[in-house]
Amino acid sequence: MTREPAVRDLTPLFDPASVAIVGASDDPAKYGHAIAVQALRAASRRPLHLVNRRGGTVLGRRAETSLSAIGEPVDLVVVSVPLAGFEEAVDEALACGARAVVAITAGFAELGDAGLARQRAVAARVRAAGALLVGPNCLGIADNTTELHLASDHFTPGGVALLSQSGNLALELQLRLEPHGLGFSRFVSLGNQADVTLVDLVDDCARHEGTRAIAVYAEDFGDGRAFAEAAARAGKPVVLLTAGRGDASARSAKSHTGALTTSADVVVAACRDAGVELTRTPRELASVLAALDSGRRARGRHVAVFTDGGGHGAIAADAVEATGLAVPELSAPLQRELTGALWEQSAVGNPVDLAGMGEQDPMSYARTVQRLLATDEVDAVLVTGYFGGYAASEDGLGGAEGTLGAAERKAAEAIAAAVPESGKPVAVQSMYPASPSCRTLVEAGVPVYEAVEDAARALAALAPATGARELRALPEAAAALGDPDYYPTRRLLEAAGVSFPPAREIRTEAELRDAAREFAGPYVLKALHLLHKSDAGGVALRLADEEALVAAYRAMHERLGAPSYSVEAMADLADGVELIVGVKRDDRFGPVAMVGLGGVLTEALGDVAFALAPVTAERAELLLRSLRSSALLDGVRGRPAVDVAAAAQAVARITAVAAAHPEIAELEVNPLLVTPHGALALDSRAVLG
Amino acid sequence: MTREPAVRDLTPLFDPASVAIVGASDDPAKYGHAIAVQALRAASRRPLHLVNRRGGTVLGRRAETSLSAIGEPVDLVVVSVPLAGFEEAVDEALACGARAVVAITAGFAELGDAGLARQRAVAARVRAAGALLVGPNCLGIADNTTELHLASDHFTPGGVALLSQSGNLALELQLRLEPHGLGFSRFVSLGNQADVTLVDLVDDCARHEGTRAIAVYAEDFGDGRAFAEAAARAGKPVVLLTAGRGDASARSAKSHTGALTTSADVVVAACRDAGVELTRTPRELASVLAALDSGRRARGRHVAVFTDGGGHGAIAADAVEATGLAVPELSAPLQRELTGALWEQSAVGNPVDLAGMGEQDPMSYARTVQRLLATDEVDAVLVTGYFGGYAASEDGLGGAEGTLGAAERKAAEAIAAAVPESGKPVAVQSMYPASPSCRTLVEAGVPVYEAVEDAARALAALAPATGARELRALPEAAAALGDPDYYPTRRLLEAAGVSFPPAREIRTEAELRDAAREFAGPYVLKALHLLHKSDAGGVALRLADEEALVAAYRAMHERLGAPSYSVEAMADLADGVELIVGVKRDDRFGPVAMVGLGGVLTEALGDVAFALAPVTAERAELLLRSLRSSALLDGVRGRPAVDVAAAAQAVARITAVAAAHPEIAELEVNPLLVTPHGALALDSRAVLG
Repeated sequence: MTREPAVRDLTPLFDPASVAIVGASDDPAKYGHAIAVQALRAASRRPLHLVNRRGGTVLGRRAETSLSAIGEPVDLVVVSVPLAGFEEAVDEALACGARAVVAITAGFAELGDAGLARQRAVAARVRAAGALLVGPNCLGIADNTTELHLASDHFTPGGVALLSQSGNLALELQLRLEPHGLGFSRFVSLGNQADVTLVDLVDDCARHEGTRAIAVYAEDFGDGRAFAEAAARAGKPVVLLTAGRGDASARSAKSHTGALTTSADVVVAACRDAGVELTRTPRELASVLAALDSGRRARGRHVAVFTDGGGHGAIAADAVEATGLAVPELSAPLQRELTGALWEQSAVGNPVDLAGMGEQDPMSYARTVQRLLATDEVDAVLVTGYFGGYAASEDGLGGAEGTLGAAERKAAEAIAAAVPESGKPVAVQSMYPASPSCRTLVEAGVPVYEAVEDAARALAALAPATGARELRALPEAAAALGDPDYYPTRRLLEAAGVSFPPAREIRTEAELRDAAREFAGPYVLKALHLLHKSDAGGVALRLADEEALVAAYRAMHERLGAPSYSVEAMADLADGVELIVGVKRDDRFGPVAMVGLGGVLTEALGDVAFALAPVTAERAELLLRSLRSSALLDGVRGRPAVDVAAAAQAVARITAVAAAHPEIAELEVNPLLVTPHGALALDSRAVLG
Repeated sequence: MTREPAVRDLTPLFDPASVAIVGASDDPAKYGHAIAVQALRAASRRPLHLVNRRGGTVLGRRAETSLSAIGEPVDLVVVSVPLAGFEEAVDEALACGARAVVAITAGFAELGDAGLARQRAVAARVRAAGALLVGPNCLGIADNTTELHLASDHFTPGGVALLSQSGNLALELQLRLEPHGLGFSRFVSLGNQADVTLVDLVDDCARHEGTRAIAVYAEDFGDGRAFAEAAARAGKPVVLLTAGRGDASARSAKSHTGALTTSADVVVAACRDAGVELTRTPRELASVLAALDSGRRARGRHVAVFTDGGGHGAIAADAVEATGLAVPELSAPLQRELTGALWEQSAVGNPVDLAGMGEQDPMSYARTVQRLLATDEVDAVLVTGYFGGYAASEDGLGGAEGTLGAAERKAAEAIAAAVPESGKPVAVQSMYPASPSCRTLVEAGVPVYEAVEDAARALAALAPATGARELRALPEAAAALGDPDYYPTRRLLEAAGVSFPPAREIRTEAELRDAAREFAGPYVLKALHLLHKSDAGGVALRLADEEALVAAYRAMHERLGAPSYSVEAMADLADGVELIVGVKRDDRFGPVAMVGLGGVLTEALGDVAFALAPVTAERAELLLRSLRSSALLDGVRGRPAVDVAAAAQAVARITAVAAAHPEIAELEVNPLLVTPHGALALDSRAVLG
């Protein structure tokens, strides 16, 4: 069933008519103090009520002893009270007409099942009242576009909506975005997402005019599939910071938010499929956001590296190539043209290196950037090295400093004008990022980084993905597979167009002999209704003729006594490659497809690729090509190439079956034999969930 | 032949009795101006002569018109003149008794063969005079321990000796080290290394009292083997920054210094073998140097991650694990102890998370760090998050700020005292690295980083390597292999203890039949004296008996007419794994060993490992275990494990043969069959260089 985008109206949350803070306090050790301080910054924007059960004053304002004492409806209520009084405060808020509750109070799902049940009960009451609940166990929210400041810290205004499960990381991100001239449109501390979820918030921020990019720090994705779908339809960059690659971070996330974590492979696949930019550290997140803010994207993956020193050029080229982008050698005509414009010792192959010319003629920086932006040979430019230093310099160059510095600032202005005109992304690494020249670039939306790997990472975020983005909706559920045995599963796959060798289920030796006459050997004999056929010796291969088949049957039946067996035509394995194709239901992301080279290789190498299921044949082929051992598909050492298109088609069909059967927890075809002439499923199994 | 460490006395270079700068100038656009400005900073230390052929004054001092006009011997001469006058200036310097020349002038090997010949001629004259030459095409030298300032920039004093092929990267490194309180003992711009090489300089800096760590930026390693050997015996950390992983950086390095670049795989292997810390960017180089400076090393690879926010903890744990270090769960007793000392909501599993307690009681930071330093369960601690912010804060916490800040500074002092006492490394990531608390840590030698990945990288540099460092000297050259054909090569390997199956070289059918009676089939028949035997159909396998062998011989001989053939006993391939073992002479690093899983896998996966040859069996086993597909050695899917020790022994012997034969450019055993019972070379080949 295709899911409809959530359409919850979050206006009461981000632009409430009035606000009350329950638990507002003069005690700086209390969270209700910090929130009240921030809220007061926009006290004239909308009615603001401070509630403290002791009454008196808070921050010099009259404090009401309860919400009801306010005497008028309140639109949004922040609840920052001890756990024991939490439910009472929420109920009172609803009674006073609150349409939104921001629940700071902690002690719920993050502490275990009892807490989970407790927060579920509260969330149900809030929803029943037609209201919204953020949290509990959250740090507040802010919306700079509506002057709503209900978090413990001040967030610089800007275009990034930050949805975060961590408060300190939000503060770090703020510090890191500041040099890039960036700030926040909104901040939401996700807390336990008992009612309003990450998905609701991504959808709302996608519609929010003041938001240009959505940044997410999440440990628990909730409905990860829905998050991926929301991100895919957002129409704005969504950048995710998450942990969970290692054992320790999974342990930490669980302890921090009670999160159900998903395998890092699945998160990587979901992000790729949804077009979410995945990052691993706050620094990487900030680098990417700074680049995305300009709105400029590269049309391809070719980068020119431009420097004023050979060392910086070589290091930068490696950094760019390490991100998967290319640094192609420039064409001979373009090299000749650059040689004509630059010094004899300048390098023009790419990296392009002024080699000292910039110090004599700073405008050569601008002219070269302009030339590199003009050529179709590259899609983006990375500038690296000393630029910025002439205007920043205090190194005793004496009289020349002023002249050089002024000339450099002019060059910066020329670059700042040329970049938006070209529409191509430029990222700058400078030893002097705070210099006047670099500030000129930053103000023009050209991101400047102190570290070259950050500039390279930024350009990677602006480059088109390899292969089209693909996130397909889950199909309508088909009639359920009642029996997950071999033949019912196989018939389901055959009906979807997956080819299997001729086979017949038999229960007696007479049926076995009949089957042997239906198709030619060699044969395979499989015992059915055993959990691990090959482990139990329940598969016999390469049975040359009927007699060999009968002998194998007798031996196997005596040993295993299986209720039935499958007689199958043995496929010709010569020139074939065995794949493994599986689909598992992930708690967060739904059906996830896995493909790999089968047999010994899968086990020894873990060489597998993932995608959210179902996948098209095109995406399946990209997955197969992304395997480290994919060269085996093209034939090595004189072997012929196999029919990758047929394999991809089969993968697509298998994933479609799994996606249409929510009752199937696992579906696997192993091996899927791919030969130069097609793809054939040699065995399959299903596990019901 | 074991090489003796170079013992060149570089005193005239780093502590000359007197200095002259030829090409000193008042023109700020001239390099001789910048050097003269720096040199004058220590004009009282030793006689300093400025030489400008126009005479008059330079920087307000009398300028001599020539070196001979000085009228007294000069110990070190900086030559910064136009190319046309270079040789004359050097000759004059030698005539004036110069024992060291620093050649700034460019236009030599970096422009091609003619320039190379020219610089070789000059270097020969310098050496003949018993003098030293740095450069040409260099940017000068500096030694802060002797007040020698002969570069265009001022370098902050400190313990790092920087040997660099790039001037701008040196400036960037200086900027990056400054926040860590680090600076330079020496700076040498390597230039073209026509005489004084990187190796000479590493050896000298190893002996230099004022140097605690040696940092190298190199594009061309010159004698890379000798560099690795010098680094291995330095007794101080050697940290290398280099490029060359991608095509573009190799292109750039060639254009920048005329460098002969080496495969990145070989550089990685050489660094590991020599104990050189390899870095890819200036930021990484600075991060590592900041950590190495304390002298503290971890005894193992287990790290405690300690934070004040769950998000920071999870991100940091991933960053640590991404470097290859472990973040183990703490033992139950230690967790109980921590739980007793911390809050209910604090996490104690590792990451350890104060979860807000630090804001109430900043000393809890110090107590927890002390506890984690005390346990044997971890070898190092990474602190990450807000710490530093209480004393740095301007966030309106009001009256509490001062108290909290003071308490945090006390905690910083306690940590600064505890770390040296424990001897264990601690790295700190702070959102506020410039805060008073963090400055306290830095001053105590506890490195503080703004980005968590830098802190994690630093700890990785302090951890012991997996397996012992191993860089074996090249053996004495053995009697040369005159004939690189199959049998002579095979006999050489057999003599070194490498096992082959029984075989006999035959020229006629009669000899073939004799051979077949010497050992049992099945047989292998190989045509000899063909370049690619298997491509030409020159190998026949699985010949069951004498008649099959004769038939194969007749067919092969008719087709190929080879002068001779090898009849061999076919090894039993069942339960075996095929390896490829090769040794190639690298222009820079000498014999380099390569091992990989053989056959289709090597070609499809490029799953190979390198080391400088020769290797011990212990190192060979580590190489085999480092392969991505190494699980195949232990047996997968019910196959038995193979005899890895025997394989490693064979690898060691093969590399010993190659290392003892400088005339062999390539030596390969492919396949080396490893079974549960031993290792057998099934084919070998050699190429003379």
